[in-house]
Amino acid sequence: MPANLQIILAQRPTPGPLTPQDFRSQETPIPVPGPGEFRVKVAYVSLDPAMRGWVSDAKSYVPPVPVGDVMRAYAVGIVDASEHVGFKVGDAVQGLFGVQSYAISNGRRVVKVDATAAPLERWVGGLGMPGWTAYFGLLDVGKPKAGETVVVSAASGAVGSVVGQIAKIRGARAVGIAGGPQKCRDLVQLFGFDSAIDYKKAGWVDDLKAACPQGIDVYFENVGGEMLDAVLPLMNIFGRIPVCGLIAGYNAREAMLGPKNFRAILTQRLRVQGLIVFDWNDRIPEASAALGAWHKEGRLKIREDVRTGGLPAFAETLNLLYSGGNNGKLVLKV
Amino acid sequence: MPANLQIILAQRPTPGPLTPQDFRSQETPIPVPGPGEFRVKVAYVSLDPAMRGWVSDAKSYVPPVPVGDVMRAYAVGIVDASEHVGFKVGDAVQGLFGVQSYAISNGRRVVKVDATAAPLERWVGGLGMPGWTAYFGLLDVGKPKAGETVVVSAASGAVGSVVGQIAKIRGARAVGIAGGPQKCRDLVQLFGFDSAIDYKKAGWVDDLKAACPQGIDVYFENVGGEMLDAVLPLMNIFGRIPVCGLIAGYNAREAMLGPKNFRAILTQRLRVQGLIVFDWNDRIPEASAALGAWHKEGRLKIREDVRTGGLPAFAETLNLLYSGGNNGKLVLKV
Repeated sequence: MPANLQIILAQRPTPGPLTPQDFRSQETPIPVPGPGEFRVKVAYVSLDPAMRGWVSDAKSYVPPVPVGDVMRAYAVGIVDASEHVGFKVGDAVQGLFGVQSYAISNGRRVVKVDATAAPLERWVGGLGMPGWTAYFGLLDVGKPKAGETVVVSAASGAVGSVVGQIAKIRGARAVGIAGGPQKCRDLVQLFGFDSAIDYKKAGWVDDLKAACPQGIDVYFENVGGEMLDAVLPLMNIFGRIPVCGLIAGYNAREAMLGPKNFRAILTQRLRVQGLIVFDWNDRIPEASAALGAWHKEGRLKIREDVRTGGLPAFAETLNLLYSGGNNGKLVLKV
Repeated sequence: MPANLQIILAQRPTPGPLTPQDFRSQETPIPVPGPGEFRVKVAYVSLDPAMRGWVSDAKSYVPPVPVGDVMRAYAVGIVDASEHVGFKVGDAVQGLFGVQSYAISNGRRVVKVDATAAPLERWVGGLGMPGWTAYFGLLDVGKPKAGETVVVSAASGAVGSVVGQIAKIRGARAVGIAGGPQKCRDLVQLFGFDSAIDYKKAGWVDDLKAACPQGIDVYFENVGGEMLDAVLPLMNIFGRIPVCGLIAGYNAREAMLGPKNFRAILTQRLRVQGLIVFDWNDRIPEASAALGAWHKEGRLKIREDVRTGGLPAFAETLNLLYSGGNNGKLVLKV
């Protein structure tokens, strides 16, 4: 009889990249749902940059994962046992099910997804939380106007690729920053960005300047550090900087230095604003509907990078995010 | 016959504090207004932190003062000759008249002031541009709610002292950061702040934390650098940081480092927003009316630090702003 394979946070990670020793796997009996609960057979686990923060005990927007607990993760799967009136066996569902092969849920913050409209893994990617993040972060915080220039970092990632496409849908110019020629080609050819900048290339800051002849109105920040410093002097007056992620600092052993060009916030009257998608929980249906419609119309392309190493490969696969080793939304097949 | 004494920008200052060599004085004939112009006999010149930026050629919100020109300055004085239908001899006026004893104006962006309602020098202080800056920066950008905690740096300065008092008028708790016990006493006893923190005292960050038991909702930034870094971890979720000045970096020889705690912008979903009072030019009458009314009712205390060294003392007097040597709005009597 199969067991429930779980990836457990084994110790509080020290600053720096996560190591295999930070996690251990364990097998437990497959759980049985109680009254008002259902069980999910997890199909795909979402690997997200935010995970580095979730295992750190630095002050953040959610409490850290306790040592000894199943690692926190968004995942998508199929209900295979239910004592819950709202969920029946066979339902495809997305939620915070953790890095494990079976999860018990009471339905809170679980979203039913349509596995016939898009592949299951897409519902933890561009049609799931990363898509919602792009939608609210760009439209509610960045507020791009038609004709403006929107720049996004980590542009080929799960959030960034959607940000650029929504910018285009709203009539703005989209410029993406990504690492390496392949990702940059994809940005233009697959996702329809107007221009792509390879930050691994010498002189990329000049390339960015050349790609933004009218300056930058919205910079959607996923990276931080030197990238923010390069962008700040190019920002137009009254520019907006939604801060969605600061992945450059997630593995840093020392606090990441803030931008040397911070003064541009004053002289250019910029608005720099942090965002966490949880703050729009009550508007998820709006984002889901919009993203789903754009996807169906072919205006929103989404790509996953599905890794098949299984749950034991969790830590090493996650680290791809911080080295830029993934191409598209990183998902672990269970 | 008296001449027009003018303070001229003699050279482009190198980074660091201004030196007497950066300026020279010259005497020219007293100018005569042409058609549509009037002449102002300048009484008080306003010394403002922004002046350090005005003489630098770093990209900023206004072009730098050209070498060889009269130094740019707000000033207040009395019309003593007029060929302008809107201004008559004896009118008290405020405007960008420069560091000189006589100025010619066509009336653009000149504000008539009521010298019977408040001393003349107050119209370049709390009832002038610094007051407008506090008004729009706090209310339009900071948006404090009753019961929230507002912290302001350089709190005993021309802008900061008004910020704290408007916060109180709006029902918020006001905490000021200033240098030295005398300024801190003034904040509480004269300006009515709830609490004052002396940043020159060891352990001041702990004092700040203790003075803000409910955290900080609005941080009105006049300083930057280490002060911003100390405040960021205390910011509440959805906190606002109007960035009005970054005086800590104005005399720096190298770019001021941005905040190490920049990540708090993301985790606490802060809004950090630069502001320049010029952006509210069309709403100056609203600010003037509100400040004037509060001042008349005794709810808004304003204090100037009038220096009597005359125009030749311009450079050394200005540098008091960056060393914290002034106490109240710094004004040079002509």
